[in-house]
Amino acid sequence: MSAIEQFADSEVFRAYATYVAVVLLKMMLMSLCTAYYRITLGVFANPEDALGHAKGGDVKKFVRRDESVERVRRCHLNDIENIVPFVGLGLLYVLSNPELSTALLHFRIFAGSRIAHTISYLAPLPQPGRALSFFAGFFVNCSMGYAILSSISYF
Amino acid sequence: MSAIEQFADSEVFRAYATYVAVVLLKMMLMSLCTAYYRITLGVFANPEDALGHAKGGDVKKFVRRDESVERVRRCHLNDIENIVPFVGLGLLYVLSNPELSTALLHFRIFAGSRIAHTISYLAPLPQPGRALSFFAGFFVNCSMGYAILSSISYF
Amino acid sequence: MSAIEQFADSEVFRAYATYVAVVLLKMMLMSLCTAYYRITLGVFANPEDALGHAKGGDVKKFVRRDESVERVRRCHLNDIENIVPFVGLGLLYVLSNPELSTALLHFRIFAGSRIAHTISYLAPLPQPGRALSFFAGFFVNCSMGYAILSSISYF
Repeated sequence: MSAIEQFADSEVFRAYATYVAVVLLKMMLMSLCTAYYRITLGVFANPEDALGHAKGGDVKKFVRRDESVERVRRCHLNDIENIVPFVGLGLLYVLSNPELSTALLHFRIFAGSRIAHTISYLAPLPQPGRALSFFAGFFVNCSMGYAILSSISYF
Repeated sequence: MSAIEQFADSEVFRAYATYVAVVLLKMMLMSLCTAYYRITLGVFANPEDALGHAKGGDVKKFVRRDESVERVRRCHLNDIENIVPFVGLGLLYVLSNPELSTALLHFRIFAGSRIAHTISYLAPLPQPGRALSFFAGFFVNCSMGYAILSSISYF
Repeated sequence: MSAIEQFADSEVFRAYATYVAVVLLKMMLMSLCTAYYRITLGVFANPEDALGHAKGGDVKKFVRRDESVERVRRCHLNDIENIVPFVGLGLLYVLSNPELSTALLHFRIFAGSRIAHTISYLAPLPQPGRALSFFAGFFVNCSMGYAILSSISYF
């Protein structure tokens, strides 16, 4: 069996692949969400985007900031800040050969925490809902980072 | 042949490596592009950066926002938002053992779409040029996400 | 020995894993750093975050921009812009089978450059300290990109 087939056969790796796909697709949804808010509220970042909306009127009126759009964008940026470490550390964590059950626990908590974070941010729910969901994912990343450094580190 | 050598020998993996290197190097170019605009226009984000430009004059005059610089930065951020999923999903997609021709099609469309997106954003070209190039890359990521979840998912 | 075990056994891969874990954990620290500044200075991005700080007073007074917080956030974003290419290109570079000493040189310079960049940004140190630390990391990424394209490229 080739190396690539062995990856596709490993349960820990397949769990990693599944949850990475879920959180990355969820993160990509934020782009559509931003576009939806921009179009329905008529709030654009570039004059060429507002052209269709202005219908011959003043384009500049639609090139502006709006708090609802900025909220979605902050949520998107927070996703990037946390999902990038998850994808990177998660792969190295899988290669440090963890128990399947421990790995699944990490991946599931992280995916759940990011979905809860998005809901708390966009609803918005009162704090500390969002802070707690952020820290759940944050600690999963820290735990995987610790597992990597304590098992396969080579300085 | 060791596992690492098998990766370097797999055509699908080498195609992935090539197109990831291309889009990541292109993304890094955006940093240079931002620096170029900041220096030629005299628009800085930090007072210590403007010091050389001010030549003993008022530093604060050069610490400001400028629409041309913000445009480059939005383009850079949009790259991050789309290239991060591509790198992550692409790797998992390669490990789900796709056909070489299908994989090449995905990678080529994505790399082309991001280059077209940057050109449309910076020129700027009239819409829907940029929107179409964005969605071409977006759908490549969705398609790879679907391929991963339908072939090697493990919840 | 399975493919996953071979990775955990390869010194080049273990060096990669170590330095990726270091720079990603450092990047995650920036989130805590932003939170620390937001709370101590009373500068929030969302009304629901400022509620506890306002103690029944006017919430809107605390929903504002502050230059110290923006500085941390720019530093964080610069990390993302550079660490994402490092994680992606680094993995492909490891799979292009480099010499251990050359690989270690790349990884150590990059990790050092990002730590120096953060210190120069947050202190802040006078330029060109930050610019030099930025370019050290930038050239490491370029060098790895070149190594990938010249050894395992498949267009």
